[in-house]
Amino acid sequence: MTQPSDIEIARAAKKLPIQEIGAKLGLAPKDLIPFGHDKAKIEPEALARLDDRPDGKLILVTAINPTPAGEGKTTTTVGLGDGLNRIGKKAMICIREASLGPNFGMKGGAAGGGHAQIVPMEDMNLHFTGDFHAITSAHNLLSAMIDNHIYWGNELEIDMRRVVWRRVLDMNDRALRQITASLGGVSNGFPREAGFDITVASEVMAILCLAKDLADLESRLGDMIVAYRRDRSPVYARDIGAHGAMAVLLKDAIKPNLVQTLENNPAFVHGGPFANIAHGCNSVVATRAALKLADYVVTEAGFGADLGAEKFFDIKCRKAGLTPAASVLVATIRALKMNGGVAKEDLGAENVEAVRKGCANLARHIENVKSFGVPVVVAINHFSGDSDAEIAEVQNYVKTQGTEAIICRHWAEGGAGTEELARRVAEIADSDMSHFAPLYPDEKPLFKKIEEIAKRIYRADEVIADKKIRDQLREWENQGYGNLPVCMAKTQYSFSTDPALRGAPTGHTIPVREVRLSAGAGFVVVICGEIMTMPGLPRHPAAEKICLNDAGEIEGLF
Amino acid sequence: MTQPSDIEIARAAKKLPIQEIGAKLGLAPKDLIPFGHDKAKIEPEALARLDDRPDGKLILVTAINPTPAGEGKTTTTVGLGDGLNRIGKKAMICIREASLGPNFGMKGGAAGGGHAQIVPMEDMNLHFTGDFHAITSAHNLLSAMIDNHIYWGNELEIDMRRVVWRRVLDMNDRALRQITASLGGVSNGFPREAGFDITVASEVMAILCLAKDLADLESRLGDMIVAYRRDRSPVYARDIGAHGAMAVLLKDAIKPNLVQTLENNPAFVHGGPFANIAHGCNSVVATRAALKLADYVVTEAGFGADLGAEKFFDIKCRKAGLTPAASVLVATIRALKMNGGVAKEDLGAENVEAVRKGCANLARHIENVKSFGVPVVVAINHFSGDSDAEIAEVQNYVKTQGTEAIICRHWAEGGAGTEELARRVAEIADSDMSHFAPLYPDEKPLFKKIEEIAKRIYRADEVIADKKIRDQLREWENQGYGNLPVCMAKTQYSFSTDPALRGAPTGHTIPVREVRLSAGAGFVVVICGEIMTMPGLPRHPAAEKICLNDAGEIEGLF
Repeated sequence: MTQPSDIEIARAAKKLPIQEIGAKLGLAPKDLIPFGHDKAKIEPEALARLDDRPDGKLILVTAINPTPAGEGKTTTTVGLGDGLNRIGKKAMICIREASLGPNFGMKGGAAGGGHAQIVPMEDMNLHFTGDFHAITSAHNLLSAMIDNHIYWGNELEIDMRRVVWRRVLDMNDRALRQITASLGGVSNGFPREAGFDITVASEVMAILCLAKDLADLESRLGDMIVAYRRDRSPVYARDIGAHGAMAVLLKDAIKPNLVQTLENNPAFVHGGPFANIAHGCNSVVATRAALKLADYVVTEAGFGADLGAEKFFDIKCRKAGLTPAASVLVATIRALKMNGGVAKEDLGAENVEAVRKGCANLARHIENVKSFGVPVVVAINHFSGDSDAEIAEVQNYVKTQGTEAIICRHWAEGGAGTEELARRVAEIADSDMSHFAPLYPDEKPLFKKIEEIAKRIYRADEVIADKKIRDQLREWENQGYGNLPVCMAKTQYSFSTDPALRGAPTGHTIPVREVRLSAGAGFVVVICGEIMTMPGLPRHPAAEKICLNDAGEIEGLF
Repeated sequence: MTQPSDIEIARAAKKLPIQEIGAKLGLAPKDLIPFGHDKAKIEPEALARLDDRPDGKLILVTAINPTPAGEGKTTTTVGLGDGLNRIGKKAMICIREASLGPNFGMKGGAAGGGHAQIVPMEDMNLHFTGDFHAITSAHNLLSAMIDNHIYWGNELEIDMRRVVWRRVLDMNDRALRQITASLGGVSNGFPREAGFDITVASEVMAILCLAKDLADLESRLGDMIVAYRRDRSPVYARDIGAHGAMAVLLKDAIKPNLVQTLENNPAFVHGGPFANIAHGCNSVVATRAALKLADYVVTEAGFGADLGAEKFFDIKCRKAGLTPAASVLVATIRALKMNGGVAKEDLGAENVEAVRKGCANLARHIENVKSFGVPVVVAINHFSGDSDAEIAEVQNYVKTQGTEAIICRHWAEGGAGTEELARRVAEIADSDMSHFAPLYPDEKPLFKKIEEIAKRIYRADEVIADKKIRDQLREWENQGYGNLPVCMAKTQYSFSTDPALRGAPTGHTIPVREVRLSAGAGFVVVICGEIMTMPGLPRHPAAEKICLNDAGEIEGLF
């Protein structure tokens, strides 16, 4: 039997009109702003009505370090949501939106896989409801207004060499990483060095994902630092007068997007910073709304638990006052084998020894997640080639780590394949076993926070940073930003900053290349190793193969 | 009695659900892709069903040269559409979408004014249905793929100094007009000069507006020239392999957007190149669809008739095989006074002499429009301060030009204020008086086409152009592009290239600064005088005053 492809399954989905999905949540048609027949934003008034309701249980899905073998974190998030609904629980899913740029780079995006997907998959991987475009516009409006301010006389006395607000595009475009702008003479302004990041790395994206409502969003936008004067005093977006117009541009983007799974269960897909260069979680607005609308909310945090879960706990939960009740750590036999040293082309062969070796990566993530006080259960996202012996090896290994590993067959079977996981997760969530606490207290100095994460989560020996970087951190502490959490930007492929270092490395060092203050979002971005805030395209971008076929269907995007 | 503001009127509008507007056109709910409750895109299948229907009559609304006094071209377009429906005709309106960038610059946009507006006005001036964002993405994907191609070895042997494909943003950002990109070392590519235009100036926008369907769009995207080799042979978007992915990004953007007037009459708002730097008309797809759906289609072309109407006739109608049946030339007493030399602050006082002087501008536009074989009637867009003597002066003057000027009070009265105009326009359109022909034949050499427009439309004595520009035009002719029309880019404020030269100047010269070949759109852009393809922001951008008030309403955008 050949399993149809993800996109074939997605296209064959029997979607319900989005109004019917809303009705499952108790939302009336007028509470929804439709985008086509299968997507809708939720009116803030409808969400405000829910304030008195008790919160549901928050369940985090995280994963081992990703490998080219794939581990299926989103797929498992969707499968678990469907599984919970299937066993009679009222559950919702909250995931992040896809970024357009990378879809045209390495490979297309997806929203789950097999029979555990969120639809409409094609829209979600293209413009969706326009949220990222709104962020790009708002971000670049501020950029234009900064240069415009300087052009017209620079009343705020911005030090042109210290403009820290860059521009963004939702595109993988290495040519824009570093540019000289305002060339061409008097009418084009004062030449200066500048550059672009990808939209998901924008502080505006982080703010959209962390703000509790539109008023909070506007206030945080105003707090963003865009430049410094010669005396090093900060210039804020508020000084430029951009925050109001930015909020207007974002007034719809902050409304959560409702879609559905293949099994017609409701899902919010909203916000989407990358977890390797930003905090990597879907929006607080969507998560909070889901907690009011459902008894169980399954959400994910990007990439492996070293990046995704750490920032979910230390940034999103800390700042939004959320308390996760349980967590699921996703692994595949194949990815464990790769973490155990097997090359991608050799993954087909049974290799219990490699699985056992790879479990070191899994074990460390279990230990890390537990260190936040959150109970964790392992989900083995089943592939047809997995051998019984390999699976038994993982299950036995995980037992020695004080938890359990449950086989999940959602890719092939949908929610029916995650019933066992769903039951166990619900049980844990209902047991109030969680004693969540962030890793470090607010008042710890910034560099110590970086060291804490590097040593306790990444298991590095030390953090390397120039005097310039240490001085910068101290300066921000003196300006009153010392109480912020840190948002680590590093490769997702390893606990270390070396993407090739799989498994559970020790003895490595974490080199800090750059630090950026996101005063509006409320964290300090710490850029480690070679990670780029503007990706590039590969030699043959996926875009070369993306087209519409004669039936008007998209080919090559998935 | 105080007239409420445009935005107050728009907010008080009794909008019908967009499905009811569709029903007026014979479209079923499934033919519509809703965006909220008051906007929808039309499914191409629904439009394909209409192919056998006869075409309605196409009516162009154009205007005298714009002045700070305002002339109300869009307002009159909307008013005439409402007026036609009011006198029992089945009429539709087709206008262009607003560009985001300028809304944050000089002043907010609008979609008509007073009681002649299209709603939802706020959405239309922000992200609307995302068409422009899709164009920005598609355009910049190609840009990124070009630099990426060079980065990975430049198999196509692109001459890096001759990359002619720029980048775009829907933003007024002078700092991006001219940049050096790919700085920062090996991993960021090969440094080269580059720059950004505003999205409306993108060839992708022009193609979206001129393509007859999605297949035509994709084919034209492939035809775009992005660079030249050392031997001057062109490199096409097709060679880069970007056209398929670009078409995927634009697959929804090409579907026309249906909205409504304050009087609940249907309007397509679709596409939107600026008439000062591009061809300035709404999409062919929307216009064609409207001609099938209604008996009369009222459309507008940007700015004064020297730019808008000339390009509507010579580019859009020529290329799409459209035959306008009538045209309306909009003027206001105030704008005529300004064209007659009165300063803005003195417009309140009656000044028949200035009105008469300003009529020289009006007369020239009448003569120009007639030279295309299209009957023209003047609409005086009435302001409460207009004196009877001033109005009489215009009416008498216009009679000497062989046509008539009709007072329109749509701003105050909606469609009731344009009944006379509507009756007259319908009568002309039904009379088959139009003998439309473009200004110049396809086979005329490119420079001669420029001269033809400069002399016959702008009434300049000569066109000034460097040898380099003339050589470039000849090279394109040798490459087979000599049969294309030219798309003039110049200031909208004057027949000349001097924005301060109002009225009906003669004896001036038209300096050509730059020429750009839009091989996919099918025209040669001729940039004259100081006109910029990336605008800047004023000292105090409108954005500084734009915000959400406590009621959640947008302030300052309009």
